[in-house]
Amino acid sequence: MSDRITLSKVTAAREVLHGIAHTTPIVTSRSLDHESNALVFLKCENFQRTGSFKFRGAYNAVSQLKLQNHRGSVITVSSGNHAQGIALACRLLGYQAQVVMPKPFAEMKYRSVRSYGATVIVAEDRTDAEQLLSNLVDEPSAAFVHPFNDPDVIAGQGTVMMELIEQQPHLDAVLAPVGGGGLLSGLCVTSHALNPRTKIYACEPAGALDAMESVKENRIVPATVLSTIADGLRTSLGDLTLPILRRHLTGFFVVEEREIATAMSFAFERLKVVIEPSSAVALAPLLRRESSLIGKRIGIVLTGGNVDQDLFCRCLDAATAAEGGTRERREI
Amino acid sequence: MSDRITLSKVTAAREVLHGIAHTTPIVTSRSLDHESNALVFLKCENFQRTGSFKFRGAYNAVSQLKLQNHRGSVITVSSGNHAQGIALACRLLGYQAQVVMPKPFAEMKYRSVRSYGATVIVAEDRTDAEQLLSNLVDEPSAAFVHPFNDPDVIAGQGTVMMELIEQQPHLDAVLAPVGGGGLLSGLCVTSHALNPRTKIYACEPAGALDAMESVKENRIVPATVLSTIADGLRTSLGDLTLPILRRHLTGFFVVEEREIATAMSFAFERLKVVIEPSSAVALAPLLRRESSLIGKRIGIVLTGGNVDQDLFCRCLDAATAAEGGTRERREI
Repeated sequence: MSDRITLSKVTAAREVLHGIAHTTPIVTSRSLDHESNALVFLKCENFQRTGSFKFRGAYNAVSQLKLQNHRGSVITVSSGNHAQGIALACRLLGYQAQVVMPKPFAEMKYRSVRSYGATVIVAEDRTDAEQLLSNLVDEPSAAFVHPFNDPDVIAGQGTVMMELIEQQPHLDAVLAPVGGGGLLSGLCVTSHALNPRTKIYACEPAGALDAMESVKENRIVPATVLSTIADGLRTSLGDLTLPILRRHLTGFFVVEEREIATAMSFAFERLKVVIEPSSAVALAPLLRRESSLIGKRIGIVLTGGNVDQDLFCRCLDAATAAEGGTRERREI
Repeated sequence: MSDRITLSKVTAAREVLHGIAHTTPIVTSRSLDHESNALVFLKCENFQRTGSFKFRGAYNAVSQLKLQNHRGSVITVSSGNHAQGIALACRLLGYQAQVVMPKPFAEMKYRSVRSYGATVIVAEDRTDAEQLLSNLVDEPSAAFVHPFNDPDVIAGQGTVMMELIEQQPHLDAVLAPVGGGGLLSGLCVTSHALNPRTKIYACEPAGALDAMESVKENRIVPATVLSTIADGLRTSLGDLTLPILRRHLTGFFVVEEREIATAMSFAFERLKVVIEPSSAVALAPLLRRESSLIGKRIGIVLTGGNVDQDLFCRCLDAATAAEGGTRERREI
């Protein structure tokens, strides 16, 4: 099935997104280079429209519906960033969006989805969400856009890598967080076609290690025990994303919860960028000087910046407390 | 005296800074464009080394000392960002930095200056700082670099405009905060030479309006009553900066304290960038849809991101409280 996602599909997605999605900037930091002992290029998808990369895949997928002359509403299930992507894409393309949001979700994501004009159906949990979704999908005029297990969504996310390669052609490795694997699949397919020697790593919270287990066992291990603040990474892989990740991923980095808070705090204090917990998961391996990254040219996808201010400030406090408030700047 | 700062001096500063200072990216946001009813380009000097534009001028000035074969220590007085710039410049160029820091200052700025290897002398207030400084400057091997009233510092800050013009050649206006006027003088001189039709506006907190009064009265009105959280803007103009601002500035925007918190919160929630209060002063006029900016192409210099996390989170809370926690995303 992974053959359905090709470079030409990513190239087509880029055409679709031209003038619609931002070409996000690369940010560099001597402090980060020093801290990680690597040369780091941050692809700032937190500056993307809706505050995350998810807008790319969502818009690309919804625009394909238009081509097929599909009318009516677009339905999805998402705790946040994909929901925002779908909501804005529908507003721009003239559809009604219906979004099932399973708890827990960030308050700002809920507000944002609503403000784009989408109808939000709150689900108590993921099981409840599946039930609510199946009722909606039965409507004949409704089209469902999966958050990640969809070739058009994956192709849209692949445009992140296409831009990154143009901005920094010689990367040794690229790191991104893994939830359902849509972004990583897009990165893998694009990188494999254009820069096959670049290594691609998935970063996953220790509290939701289903993707690593799925790739190891070559079956979709459901995300069941979920104890992470990285709200975007609480999903299992799909039958489209698993084979792509198995084929192309170099490996996984497992990240502890305290490292997530530390990475958010580092981004605040040194990088001056706001990242949500799921993004911090991809920054954390650098901050602990993961040995395989030392001395290398590393691209990091900062996937999003949609975090409630209460949680954000609690993470900053936790990070400061953990280090006794004594961190010194060590740039040289 | 302003004739001492010419475009060729800015061009020379750019050569000096090449490969040393970051060429900072431009960030755009549909939300901000919508909110301001303008087309806005954010020049992100908060991503500059040391977290503010001040590194440019400091490094340029300290490197001139080197050319004159000056040995020994470099002395300055600054509550924060210029101090960090001097400290890092001295570390890179092999000088000892001695920094007088008058209270109040951000804790993170103090830690940062120290971590670059500078000697910090804490002063109780600006009067105390002047006294401490005069003792230091008497040392024969010491060179003093003023935070803004110095042609090499102003030329270094002018490189911000040189980059901005290359990145966005057709701006109707550029906004920046004003403290001592070093950045604005650099912007004015460079813009006047390269893009004379671009209007330059100074943004000043209502709690420290000395620059506006100085320009109006054509004399340096001392900054005395200082009731603003914008810690970088608590200085008076200098005899170099006043005539440049008088000659080239289009006008001033006066910003209230509550608008500073609102702009910081907007930057956090929508732009995903961390800005310090002094930076927020230049964003605020857009958020209130200042009439002369509507429909225009506007450049904003986000001057820095060095803010203690406690103050940052207090500002976010204050902004949320002020709007009853009901702000909705209004991007279209």
